[in-house]
Amino acid sequence: MKTLVLSLLFLAAVAPLPAADPTADIKALLSAQQAAWNRGDLDAFMDGYVRSDDLRFASDGEITYGWRTTLRHYQERYPDRATMGRLRLHGIVVTVLAHDAAIAFGHWELARESDRPHGLFTLTLKRTDDGWRIFQYHTSSASAPDRD
Amino acid sequence: MKTLVLSLLFLAAVAPLPAADPTADIKALLSAQQAAWNRGDLDAFMDGYVRSDDLRFASDGEITYGWRTTLRHYQERYPDRATMGRLRLHGIVVTVLAHDAAIAFGHWELARESDRPHGLFTLTLKRTDDGWRIFQYHTSSASAPDRD
Repeated sequence: MKTLVLSLLFLAAVAPLPAADPTADIKALLSAQQAAWNRGDLDAFMDGYVRSDDLRFASDGEITYGWRTTLRHYQERYPDRATMGRLRLHGIVVTVLAHDAAIAFGHWELARESDRPHGLFTLTLKRTDDGWRIFQYHTSSASAPDRD
Repeated sequence: MKTLVLSLLFLAAVAPLPAADPTADIKALLSAQQAAWNRGDLDAFMDGYVRSDDLRFASDGEITYGWRTTLRHYQERYPDRATMGRLRLHGIVVTVLAHDAAIAFGHWELARESDRPHGLFTLTLKRTDDGWRIFQYHTSSASAPDRD
């Protein structure tokens, strides 16, 4: 009996805790990115991406590799608050694929003075030592005639 | 000694074999899809997708759910061999996320009489009882001015 109790205690000590569902953490990351964008803080926004040369950013027909190049791409494309507009990410669906890997899919929309571009995104995320980070990004734009 | 040998034999029998890298299987699946498309066999092409209502197909700004609706979408958009054109998938990069989950990213191109639409795709794949199948699809088109 004593052996059984000890065995159970041992098992309790070494068995990994069931991993918590990371959906809330991933949604919080995207929410933080949206907030950073909307206060014009590109540095904080970029924190959502893994700081690696392997980061892959696909936008419509164009591919960018690496964290630094992606930052430059954003700086060139959105030089001021007017072009940044107000970002809204919505309809986010997280698919957990492993304890350290997930996909987030959803809609993006940019409300600006003169236009309102919008579309869809698929993000591949990995759990890193710093928490969940995006390491692959694919975004597509709805064409103008579909604009609602 | 006999017990040890028996134990080792038992372990050899129950221990899972190290999973083979599924990259080749996934590339073969996409290659089979391309071949099916190019002989006008939409049924065989659709075999690459998981036959589920959960299948998600995102194209530019539009989302389609379910295998049957996706098939109908293809049938309407590509009613004949001329509109189907000749599909080429290239630059495929597979990222394995778990023993049963992977991402495939690459370029697609449709050579047709009158145009050559092209763009990028990100596929989420799962290992099913029937082999690897696509269950999330995100494709984006390069805009006409980028057309090479």
